[in-house]
Amino acid sequence: MKEIYLDNAATTKVDPKVLKKMIPYLEECYGNPSSTHFKGEEAKRAVEEARERIAKEIGAGYKELYFTGSGTEANNFALKGLFFSNYPDKNHIITTKIEHDCVLNTCKFLEKLGAKVTYLNVDAEGFIDIKELEDAITDKTIVVSVIHGNNEIGTIQDISNIGEVCHKKGTLFHTDICQSFTKVKINVKKMNIDLATLNAHKIHGPKGVGALYVKESVKITPLLHGGGQELGKRSSTENVSSIVGFSEAVKAVKAVGMFDLSNMKKLRDYFIDELKKIPNVSLNGSIGDKRLVNNINISFQNIEGEAIGSFLNSYKIYTSTGSACSSKSLESSHVLLALGLDPLKANSSIRMSISKYTTKEEVDYALEKIKSTVEKLRKISPIA
Amino acid sequence: MKEIYLDNAATTKVDPKVLKKMIPYLEECYGNPSSTHFKGEEAKRAVEEARERIAKEIGAGYKELYFTGSGTEANNFALKGLFFSNYPDKNHIITTKIEHDCVLNTCKFLEKLGAKVTYLNVDAEGFIDIKELEDAITDKTIVVSVIHGNNEIGTIQDISNIGEVCHKKGTLFHTDICQSFTKVKINVKKMNIDLATLNAHKIHGPKGVGALYVKESVKITPLLHGGGQELGKRSSTENVSSIVGFSEAVKAVKAVGMFDLSNMKKLRDYFIDELKKIPNVSLNGSIGDKRLVNNINISFQNIEGEAIGSFLNSYKIYTSTGSACSSKSLESSHVLLALGLDPLKANSSIRMSISKYTTKEEVDYALEKIKSTVEKLRKISPIA
Repeated sequence: MKEIYLDNAATTKVDPKVLKKMIPYLEECYGNPSSTHFKGEEAKRAVEEARERIAKEIGAGYKELYFTGSGTEANNFALKGLFFSNYPDKNHIITTKIEHDCVLNTCKFLEKLGAKVTYLNVDAEGFIDIKELEDAITDKTIVVSVIHGNNEIGTIQDISNIGEVCHKKGTLFHTDICQSFTKVKINVKKMNIDLATLNAHKIHGPKGVGALYVKESVKITPLLHGGGQELGKRSSTENVSSIVGFSEAVKAVKAVGMFDLSNMKKLRDYFIDELKKIPNVSLNGSIGDKRLVNNINISFQNIEGEAIGSFLNSYKIYTSTGSACSSKSLESSHVLLALGLDPLKANSSIRMSISKYTTKEEVDYALEKIKSTVEKLRKISPIA
Repeated sequence: MKEIYLDNAATTKVDPKVLKKMIPYLEECYGNPSSTHFKGEEAKRAVEEARERIAKEIGAGYKELYFTGSGTEANNFALKGLFFSNYPDKNHIITTKIEHDCVLNTCKFLEKLGAKVTYLNVDAEGFIDIKELEDAITDKTIVVSVIHGNNEIGTIQDISNIGEVCHKKGTLFHTDICQSFTKVKINVKKMNIDLATLNAHKIHGPKGVGALYVKESVKITPLLHGGGQELGKRSSTENVSSIVGFSEAVKAVKAVGMFDLSNMKKLRDYFIDELKKIPNVSLNGSIGDKRLVNNINISFQNIEGEAIGSFLNSYKIYTSTGSACSSKSLESSHVLLALGLDPLKANSSIRMSISKYTTKEEVDYALEKIKSTVEKLRKISPIA
């Protein structure tokens, strides 16, 4: 039986074109970019070309993008870095109740060090209230951090507007664009973004590499101190092959661009429409253009999402409950609870995330198996 | 002209066996280890097998090794993690004047947060004074961090003895073994090590992956907060392919082990003996078994090391002045200054670091070019 991978929000298959570009940097071009000889310079050049391409893609300046080891590291870097650069003059961070765990748990850590954190509410579709944000900003606010495309429910915040409010009230705006990058056009300057977190493995690049965009005028304390790589902002020997892979992943997306996006969107909507034909289901998150083109999150009344996922797994159909990062915990998704779902309904949900490689045939097969699984489980459900 | 790579302390060529093992995890086995489906489990299994192999190699328990994105990250994690777990009850860190920049700059950062740091002196060969260490430890000391094999001068500290003193005086012992790992037999239990930093790209594994050993009883605050990977100690989607590569690099070394080491040692001593035939040169660091088998660091009186390196580079012979991480700065090596060299002599030094791939023919060719370069430069030296 063929595998059907519907967990692209957790991680994606590396594009063969990406791997091909990485290989030389795992073979002959193995120099350390900090070395001043030819072999180091060759590696350095590869890193700088990658930086230029990715920075350009988000409308950032060439010196405003710092490579990291992951999106998690970039989010930790953004929030801790700004905290250590501003505390104790300023001590306040604003974020939302639907952020990725790496933002929420970083905030919890910073609270222990003296930070005050406001966790904004979201409405039933996952949007923050701009007025609530505006009212929360004080002269002690260091930064507002709001995820762009939510990793569980696909809701796309109006970050341009959020950034505008932040700037009007004199605070910085950080956004995690790991899920939305290459799916929604980003221009950090036009969209009022001061810091942005991105990574490679959500866009068919390798794991182990991310980046933080930091506007040139923003002061930020490093998370990794050391040899002074990345203009002194992020020390560590650069992961050259993966950085090259990251850049190639961006190039590969650009090469097909709108074609893949509109195909994914059609497939997503078809998937959602067909799922809605199952009795007593409901879509979590937003709709249309305000939802990531690859995200489907559905609650199946009276069934455990875990049970559905487990059956689908036995058919080699790979889905997720909650985000991969927290899928091994048994707690209800904090994102779904923030939408107002009760724990029972939150636990009845599964997330399916498609990619450019997902076909209609795969979706049809998955639909067939989801339908039969739901029917079967509802028959035996103690809570039906 | 063939390249002669003598900068293996900066980074090493990935062993083809390592790359071969990595490829499947960059192709079909692309799951996220945190995903609960088969594709996630497959990735998880690979990570856990790697953990088991590497942990075993240093005599650590299976649950005591946490993967990181680099040695730099592991050193930052060790020191910041212990600081945040112990401050303000304890506030004192002891390290040496010859640590890697990632330890020294982490200490400087922690000083701003309230840490008191003692930087131990070293003797002319780079060894710390055990008595000075013992006297420095107080009941406020959180940790003693001493590099095992020095990255610039190859001096191998007696870490077993250092660890014993730390434990006698009731403090923790951390050591950076990035350079010594697989070159000196390590057993963290027998050698009284509580935390140890290692990485892959110094042992013919990929860049972008390291690990921190933390004894099970030691409490440590994460450096990367998030989804709770690595037993909650280091969040981030695991860099599966590189972790697998790290493990394979360890396996590859073990397969040849003593053979490579004794060859490297012979070649190192031959290299040093031949260099010493050049007038007015001196070896920096220690000798014999107390020096890393791959390290040569030589001062050439009255010549700039940079100038020698630059000439050698034009012959495609790749060497280094100082560590790669700081080789782009024009400051004298802090390590050589700590040995007591004056800045002029420190700046007259180059480091050559060999690997299992280095041949006697390469060394002979390098020797020939070094001799002619030194002669040429001395003729035109304004300080000769």
